[in-house]
Amino acid sequence: MKPVVIRRSRRPDASAVARLAAAGVATVHEAMGRSGLMKPVMRPIWRGAPVAGAAVTVLSQPGDNWMIHVAVEQCRPGDMLVVALTSDSTDGMFGDLLATSLKARGVVGLVIDAGCRDVATLEEMGFPVWSRAISARGTVKVTLGSVNVPVVCAGALVNPGDVIVADDDGVVVVPMAEAEAVAGLADARLANEEDKRARLAAGELGLDIYGMREGLAKAGLVYLDDPEEGPS
Amino acid sequence: MKPVVIRRSRRPDASAVARLAAAGVATVHEAMGRSGLMKPVMRPIWRGAPVAGAAVTVLSQPGDNWMIHVAVEQCRPGDMLVVALTSDSTDGMFGDLLATSLKARGVVGLVIDAGCRDVATLEEMGFPVWSRAISARGTVKVTLGSVNVPVVCAGALVNPGDVIVADDDGVVVVPMAEAEAVAGLADARLANEEDKRARLAAGELGLDIYGMREGLAKAGLVYLDDPEEGPS
Amino acid sequence: MKPVVIRRSRRPDASAVARLAAAGVATVHEAMGRSGLMKPVMRPIWRGAPVAGAAVTVLSQPGDNWMIHVAVEQCRPGDMLVVALTSDSTDGMFGDLLATSLKARGVVGLVIDAGCRDVATLEEMGFPVWSRAISARGTVKVTLGSVNVPVVCAGALVNPGDVIVADDDGVVVVPMAEAEAVAGLADARLANEEDKRARLAAGELGLDIYGMREGLAKAGLVYLDDPEEGPS
Amino acid sequence: MKPVVIRRSRRPDASAVARLAAAGVATVHEAMGRSGLMKPVMRPIWRGAPVAGAAVTVLSQPGDNWMIHVAVEQCRPGDMLVVALTSDSTDGMFGDLLATSLKARGVVGLVIDAGCRDVATLEEMGFPVWSRAISARGTVKVTLGSVNVPVVCAGALVNPGDVIVADDDGVVVVPMAEAEAVAGLADARLANEEDKRARLAAGELGLDIYGMREGLAKAGLVYLDDPEEGPS
Amino acid sequence: MKPVVIRRSRRPDASAVARLAAAGVATVHEAMGRSGLMKPVMRPIWRGAPVAGAAVTVLSQPGDNWMIHVAVEQCRPGDMLVVALTSDSTDGMFGDLLATSLKARGVVGLVIDAGCRDVATLEEMGFPVWSRAISARGTVKVTLGSVNVPVVCAGALVNPGDVIVADDDGVVVVPMAEAEAVAGLADARLANEEDKRARLAAGELGLDIYGMREGLAKAGLVYLDDPEEGPS
Amino acid sequence: MKPVVIRRSRRPDASAVARLAAAGVATVHEAMGRSGLMKPVMRPIWRGAPVAGAAVTVLSQPGDNWMIHVAVEQCRPGDMLVVALTSDSTDGMFGDLLATSLKARGVVGLVIDAGCRDVATLEEMGFPVWSRAISARGTVKVTLGSVNVPVVCAGALVNPGDVIVADDDGVVVVPMAEAEAVAGLADARLANEEDKRARLAAGELGLDIYGMREGLAKAGLVYLDDPEEGPS
Repeated sequence: MKPVVIRRSRRPDASAVARLAAAGVATVHEAMGRSGLMKPVMRPIWRGAPVAGAAVTVLSQPGDNWMIHVAVEQCRPGDMLVVALTSDSTDGMFGDLLATSLKARGVVGLVIDAGCRDVATLEEMGFPVWSRAISARGTVKVTLGSVNVPVVCAGALVNPGDVIVADDDGVVVVPMAEAEAVAGLADARLANEEDKRARLAAGELGLDIYGMREGLAKAGLVYLDDPEEGPS
Repeated sequence: MKPVVIRRSRRPDASAVARLAAAGVATVHEAMGRSGLMKPVMRPIWRGAPVAGAAVTVLSQPGDNWMIHVAVEQCRPGDMLVVALTSDSTDGMFGDLLATSLKARGVVGLVIDAGCRDVATLEEMGFPVWSRAISARGTVKVTLGSVNVPVVCAGALVNPGDVIVADDDGVVVVPMAEAEAVAGLADARLANEEDKRARLAAGELGLDIYGMREGLAKAGLVYLDDPEEGPS
Repeated sequence: MKPVVIRRSRRPDASAVARLAAAGVATVHEAMGRSGLMKPVMRPIWRGAPVAGAAVTVLSQPGDNWMIHVAVEQCRPGDMLVVALTSDSTDGMFGDLLATSLKARGVVGLVIDAGCRDVATLEEMGFPVWSRAISARGTVKVTLGSVNVPVVCAGALVNPGDVIVADDDGVVVVPMAEAEAVAGLADARLANEEDKRARLAAGELGLDIYGMREGLAKAGLVYLDDPEEGPS
Repeated sequence: MKPVVIRRSRRPDASAVARLAAAGVATVHEAMGRSGLMKPVMRPIWRGAPVAGAAVTVLSQPGDNWMIHVAVEQCRPGDMLVVALTSDSTDGMFGDLLATSLKARGVVGLVIDAGCRDVATLEEMGFPVWSRAISARGTVKVTLGSVNVPVVCAGALVNPGDVIVADDDGVVVVPMAEAEAVAGLADARLANEEDKRARLAAGELGLDIYGMREGLAKAGLVYLDDPEEGPS
Repeated sequence: MKPVVIRRSRRPDASAVARLAAAGVATVHEAMGRSGLMKPVMRPIWRGAPVAGAAVTVLSQPGDNWMIHVAVEQCRPGDMLVVALTSDSTDGMFGDLLATSLKARGVVGLVIDAGCRDVATLEEMGFPVWSRAISARGTVKVTLGSVNVPVVCAGALVNPGDVIVADDDGVVVVPMAEAEAVAGLADARLANEEDKRARLAAGELGLDIYGMREGLAKAGLVYLDDPEEGPS
Repeated sequence: MKPVVIRRSRRPDASAVARLAAAGVATVHEAMGRSGLMKPVMRPIWRGAPVAGAAVTVLSQPGDNWMIHVAVEQCRPGDMLVVALTSDSTDGMFGDLLATSLKARGVVGLVIDAGCRDVATLEEMGFPVWSRAISARGTVKVTLGSVNVPVVCAGALVNPGDVIVADDDGVVVVPMAEAEAVAGLADARLANEEDKRARLAAGELGLDIYGMREGLAKAGLVYLDDPEEGPS
């Protein structure tokens, strides 16, 4: 793999991105048939509202953030930077100066399969980051990587331009070509959940709402009274 | 182990449960002779007040939350749901819809040796959860498990009806039959600590309050002046 | 290694300590040539302002906090207690009573390569702790260790009297003899960053500010247009 | 929990134990409805033949092997020692001297949820151990625990007298009262597998032997030809 | 993602596969510009000779090996089965019966991002497996997945037909289209290493063979005599 | 920390080194008052006889083995190379070419707090390595580190010239100045154990040999007959 920066202008539809952000990670992941999720080791450095953006991808050496500087130039408003490494590391490859630069370009957040630092300042700035670790460990700038190539980040394949949705539950990747369809499915799920939520809040049981009793019985579930208790 | 749901009505004494909640996990665990604690991988998804309740137990397959739906029906006000798995998993087996249902039944919280999702909503709802992970990963509903059988959850044995006490320090299990006795011991410890706290705050040393100096000397502890410093 | 308590009065210069606290962990660590950092497993039990203090060191057996009680007596205002273990453990060796005692002596914080408990109370008290874990697991008081000997804590060598700087990004150790020099270097870095931050916020690229383009080209970085897009 | 040693003489039926050893861990675990297995972190310190024995249980403090010395006296020929801890540790609580003592009493092996040392000598002695870690870290002998009480070891509940079956695949626990029944079920599984193995070796497909095709089709599985290939 | 089985006949060139097997994982990974490697958590269940084969990929639910049975039918002589999961698990999804079936079809090995069992029998059979864990934990057969779709396995993207090379050092993935080119580069590396090895064995220093001294001096490396020693 | 190579000629006494190798890691660690041990994550890549040697230390960047090449020149017959990193990594920083070079210089083994590769070849060569991981991941050669400075390796402080003892149980560090004294203590322990081993093998109990019964009774240990059994 030769180091390369791909300049690309295609972005997913902005309204689809907004709808996916509003749906949230769990719903989007379900709408995609339970796929596209990064591993749960990816956590927000501070908790807040869901964000979504178009992926600008970076493949870096561990402990080397040279390519993140390169990637900033490729970002546009509404983008989300996704940094993957060639090998596991928790070094703090990203801090408040890079965040200042990304914010100036309209980038909505960062997903990095490594460490992040300056987290107090990042929270003050309102710049959201999902990372594998928080670490003050500094980095070098000596080895090339690539920008806007497909990467595997926290177990998920990310292509440049894919929609990244992230919230307190984690991070999910929606292929650019599927953004609108998934947004539609997610909206449908949300509408359906609303009714369920009201019935459950009123005390109705999921066993009845979802019609599970027959399936459970067929699968062989048996109900017994506690033998240590007398008849109730 | 055949899948089974045990219907049971016995619950621990409500006032003992309340006293255990007030004492908190660390004190209750000490009052039990330093036993009953779950592993520290169990963390609250949001921090808040201690809660305690009677365990309704669930043994589930990883990535399958069918039995949680079954368990809801077995819950009563004041209960706490405890979900153990047959094998390790961090999948998000519990979310806001199930919490809505549990809340409607008066359940005070959830302890799950797996993942949890919709954590922002759960915090808004004020529904407390202790879990091994936060994960949006969805689940299937295809394989039976059991409800109200003894389970091992995060390294601790939990029998249905045991009192579960949980706070920001972790989760502890008090056998139903010992609830009142442990509550008494915990109250005694709290009373004893109050005096200690005041003396320590006033600058008295634990070495003196606890009478440790003799034991330390007998064990052979030696005090030396820093050889690199002159006489003080 | 015979158990020993070293009484020592030398402390690092107070103004250097204050400047290091103000600079924060990431900057101090960079100012030291990216050295002295503890592993990122060390996390604050609550997030807040940076603190710094002179290390009083403790070497304890896992699950035994006897020597922490011994160490309290060796602490002075402005100190920071650093607890290392002879073997890995997450047991909750420190709680609110010890914190009350340390606070009464003017100790500014604790770094412990083990667990901590009573975290809600510690946050209320405003007593900062960096630990490997949060755990209610109680401890015994039966085996000696040492106080004010060199220890390895979370991968970093700590000598008594070293300056410990800790914030939301982690914990760094500055050798006592280097405190002033490092404070100077840290201040210089901060001043330099201020200018950079303003330029980045204005939209200037790091690639240009840091003059990276030539180095990237020399290293062989290639820019390509996305082959799947037409000419832009 | 007061420290206690329970003297007990009941042991599971020896021929059932032998049959369980011969069946191996995977088969026994399946015969029990996929239950009773310890977590896979438990690994043999050297690979060899399956062993099975009656559990003598120990609950120890981490880093303290006093109670293992106590437990030796409670062991009889054919027993298997099971050591659980009150808190996680990898310290090397067991070595060749204890193994010499256990061997002299006819104990067939050790399962310890901690570390083991002298592994080269243990292999020479032919004494099998399953442990969480290999570690030379020595231990103290100062805090009591219990012998022959129910323990949770590597996630599995073990009652004294239960049959412990261990091989290169891991460790499984069979309740004493179920030993014969499980041995019968395991034997049946083995007999059934023999026929399957021959058919599979002859090239017959599991899809056909197990009659899976209908279920797969009903569940919705679709077969497609690779669109990038021409018709085959 | 709808469950699907892709029938495909294209395979990489057999002689390229053989050359890649002979080169070994470390050399192949270097020849690819240090890419394509799975995470080091993937370990052989027994150590032996390097193998290589064409990937037949499986995407399974954790704890469910139904799709492995489906995949067997898609395998041809010289293939290597690659099993990825939708979520982390160490359950023993593969054992000697499936290995018997794969062997009957000429499959050369298995790479599974989960657990494996019957490892003693698999070693006797000479069937090589690389897995994340060894675990006797059995599985269900209830949820569909896919066969011969692109998967992320242990952090590496695997497309069906890619060459999988595995040995005691780990597992590397070579895209089918690059197999011959990479084999050529790997052979060149091996030839080059042969000469280096002889010179190093003769006592020549890598510093001189690789001409590193100038670069080290330019980078600022300083040599000092030990100040605590007299002149040598 | 400026990068530096310290040229040093002092080595520990060769006969003390040989005696420490013969004593083995567990005994040496005990003879040092249970100190000096590296964390148990350090494992031999193949099992064999204990080795010991004088430490030549390396501090490297993760994923960069430039300084190992530099360190080779500083090694003499009987030395043992110890590689520590500035940040955690499992990359395979060491392989058969470096081992060939070290062997040519008479180096007896390697301890590396990172990954190792070419493990099959290293075993054939009989070159022993203790590492955190086995990984084929290759490295760069671009950033300086230091040779023969004090390092923290796997949690243990290592000064150049310290005796490193390593065997199947792990790795222990003996300060150069204490080598002879520790060798003497280790020999005494071995002699003492010989007698114990014979008595234990003859069936005598450790409880009696070590005179533990009184201490156990004083600590409050209680013996009970199994209440579920009749009188024996």
